[in-house]
Amino acid sequence: MSSEAPLHPDVAHLAFLLGTWEGEGRGDYPTIEPFPYGEAVSFWHNGKPFLSYSQLTWHLDDHRPLHSEMGFLRGHGKGEQVEWVIAHPSGIVEIEVGWVKERNLELESKRVTLAPTAKQVTRLTRSIEVVPDMRGAVLRYQLSMAAVGQALQQHLSAELRRLSPEAAAAKDR
Amino acid sequence: MSSEAPLHPDVAHLAFLLGTWEGEGRGDYPTIEPFPYGEAVSFWHNGKPFLSYSQLTWHLDDHRPLHSEMGFLRGHGKGEQVEWVIAHPSGIVEIEVGWVKERNLELESKRVTLAPTAKQVTRLTRSIEVVPDMRGAVLRYQLSMAAVGQALQQHLSAELRRLSPEAAAAKDR
Repeated sequence: MSSEAPLHPDVAHLAFLLGTWEGEGRGDYPTIEPFPYGEAVSFWHNGKPFLSYSQLTWHLDDHRPLHSEMGFLRGHGKGEQVEWVIAHPSGIVEIEVGWVKERNLELESKRVTLAPTAKQVTRLTRSIEVVPDMRGAVLRYQLSMAAVGQALQQHLSAELRRLSPEAAAAKDR
Repeated sequence: MSSEAPLHPDVAHLAFLLGTWEGEGRGDYPTIEPFPYGEAVSFWHNGKPFLSYSQLTWHLDDHRPLHSEMGFLRGHGKGEQVEWVIAHPSGIVEIEVGWVKERNLELESKRVTLAPTAKQVTRLTRSIEVVPDMRGAVLRYQLSMAAVGQALQQHLSAELRRLSPEAAAAKDR
């Protein structure tokens, strides 16, 4: 989905995220039953100083859609600081701030803002690492959440593989 | 991009927005030169009680990318109230609330939250109408903005046409 434009230098250090990733994860939280899920994540760019981001998960049994989210990851060049703005269909928008170091990204919500009928989420942290391997690359992430009166704690973790450009294009159709 | 799933009843009254729309608009603001732009907007669904939304604009002379945004439009069935959560690559996230009536949507930002390095936008309003015509349908919108110390005022207006499903699929490739 990325354009022909060269990657903007302010996000060059985020190039390790580009592409479409697919795999499986697991969700836990005190208020719900643990659940496994399938997931697809895409990062793409158009030559400007940010990466576009979209994500969706589905139930592994019947493939019904679960969560999805979309947003933009803003780089600032020289420094390692990044900002990630994300909208959730559950009526939540987040401003996350954090840093990137090699192939690791660590972020924490600076502001979580809720639509009038949204679930009460108060804080999120995200940790992402990309590890090259013989078959390409693996993306692992962990997400912690404070919500509905519960303290910040592990909520989601997943392991995704980068699809080949051909496989990613076929998924888009 | 919509799934095979039936449209959720809570967003049935928003069905007039579904599809991919393309056309041209014009931007004005006291701090910038007036500018014409090309624009593509998509609304799609996956059977859950929201529409997914993405938008991008480009310069009409050289097709360089200008703005883009992504988010989710949440319906609540019976009532006319809707919530729209939107992330902007300029480091802004919005919670908009408003109402839908027939083929009109009127929204106002309830909260605008800024990443540390974002431009100072304080308030937005959006007005959208879809008018069926002999060639299909036209979507017109107006967006007003209060930003960088200026009062809320007209910023963007555009007129877009719905693409045929075949034309929209070709654009995705």
